[in-house]
Amino acid sequence: MEINPEKVTAIIENFIRQKVMEYRREGVVLGMSGGIDSAVVGTLACRALGAEKVLALLLPERDSSPSSKADALKVIEQLGISHREIPLTPVLTEIGIYRMLPLQMLGLRSIKESVTRDQHRRMREALHEMPFSAGLLGTKDLGKKQETLDAGNAYARIKHRTRMLMLYYVSDLENRLVLGTTNKSESMTGFVVKWGDNVADIEPIVPLYKTQVRQLAHYLNVPQIIIDKAPSPDLIPGVVDEFALGIDYATLDRILWSLEKGWKPDRIISDWGVTAEQVSHVSEMTRRSEHLRSLPPAPVLDL
Amino acid sequence: MEINPEKVTAIIENFIRQKVMEYRREGVVLGMSGGIDSAVVGTLACRALGAEKVLALLLPERDSSPSSKADALKVIEQLGISHREIPLTPVLTEIGIYRMLPLQMLGLRSIKESVTRDQHRRMREALHEMPFSAGLLGTKDLGKKQETLDAGNAYARIKHRTRMLMLYYVSDLENRLVLGTTNKSESMTGFVVKWGDNVADIEPIVPLYKTQVRQLAHYLNVPQIIIDKAPSPDLIPGVVDEFALGIDYATLDRILWSLEKGWKPDRIISDWGVTAEQVSHVSEMTRRSEHLRSLPPAPVLDL
Repeated sequence: MEINPEKVTAIIENFIRQKVMEYRREGVVLGMSGGIDSAVVGTLACRALGAEKVLALLLPERDSSPSSKADALKVIEQLGISHREIPLTPVLTEIGIYRMLPLQMLGLRSIKESVTRDQHRRMREALHEMPFSAGLLGTKDLGKKQETLDAGNAYARIKHRTRMLMLYYVSDLENRLVLGTTNKSESMTGFVVKWGDNVADIEPIVPLYKTQVRQLAHYLNVPQIIIDKAPSPDLIPGVVDEFALGIDYATLDRILWSLEKGWKPDRIISDWGVTAEQVSHVSEMTRRSEHLRSLPPAPVLDL
Repeated sequence: MEINPEKVTAIIENFIRQKVMEYRREGVVLGMSGGIDSAVVGTLACRALGAEKVLALLLPERDSSPSSKADALKVIEQLGISHREIPLTPVLTEIGIYRMLPLQMLGLRSIKESVTRDQHRRMREALHEMPFSAGLLGTKDLGKKQETLDAGNAYARIKHRTRMLMLYYVSDLENRLVLGTTNKSESMTGFVVKWGDNVADIEPIVPLYKTQVRQLAHYLNVPQIIIDKAPSPDLIPGVVDEFALGIDYATLDRILWSLEKGWKPDRIISDWGVTAEQVSHVSEMTRRSEHLRSLPPAPVLDL
């Protein structure tokens, strides 16, 4: 699963340059979250086009971690690109999502309080009862868990869709290409929001698993603090990627890679030392998320 | 280009039923605009699932025509389905789009005033100078028209994306499948908004040209007033589909259908009595809108 970072960098840079020309844009725009994916995409865009063509948007809302912004600004400063902050809280408040408070369902009284060990345990139990993957296709027949999962989905997904809305608003106003920051581990497990962060104008790093993005980040001198921190969608305090996914990225990527190669479960289990449960969990996420990697289906009319 | 409405209806009904099961949803939701496309999709959904499973959203904003709502309510009443109105003006105001007033660029002083013949002429001239299709791929090198077109695009497109946002918010909260209402004429010309109305969970009528949707509407007893009125995206007063597209639907559909069949321009011109300019205008729209019918491209890394 090792990549040749020099070669990969050259191909992606060329791809970005080519697409900006083909789509007749003045430059690019991307959401800079403070995470490793957007740091890598921003760096590649800078190398491809020059810093003056790259605009980073900071799109914080009420539940965003303050460290996200600080980390994003580190990357922005290092790259010397311009940025703009568009707070999403007013729009999301207008829509009314904060009145839903799904965090209360997870055992938190206030969205602002820091997460205690006990609350974290209750969140973990709640998520174990209804992992994000349970709602990938739909939530019918989940019994009394359904209402909680529906509310949690609505609460989290609208944030990603509002980020997309703002990226495209700026893109339309300034004729910029919207760069996606989704990686292959997220895409293949459906750890993305439909028509939120699963789309953009182009997806520069979607052929790379998360562990490969990390390798690339080292090569591109992304700040170490960003490489080291736990990846998080930054939607609900305390809920980081590996917690929601129910598996760590190293194991996930090995299983995804092996499934892609067509390995049988037995070989995956024995060669990587993973469990049968882990393999079937990952296969199930991949199966249920297929509609997140496809355009909407249409009837076959045979006209 | 004639369809067999009975057969088409049966196939689409079956498709809707099948997808609601496959996606494990409680029912469906769609935006009811007062136009023919959503009237047809709503009717098909009712026939497929029963009226109690269908929810229509009315998503008006400041520039929406009042007759749109009245026409939508006619369909809703006829079908006996439930509906909910979510005004988009507060959210769009919060984002700040109404401060842009691109209508002033089109010769209107106030967005609320009715369009006079003289203003309509100026709008027509402005649109002739920079038709919607000029911005399909991007607007680079359009000179001083570019700023106006960018502003107009940003102004119009965010409305469709906000409609999508609200459809999915309700879909997530109530575990409903989002029905798209795009037809083939819109899809093939790019007369849709990327990640706005070009996506949904399923697209029941996207294999049908507008003229075929009209034929189906007759068969399904859609109110005559809706079949007869000029189709409009209802984003800017006075700008109806055929005005923005620069061609009438009957001619457009003949050209699209012939291009799909692989006819050479000469044959299209002679068999249908259309002009060479019309054929190249349609071909150009189809070419430039290809990215609106595809998922975001990614680099080929050959790992």
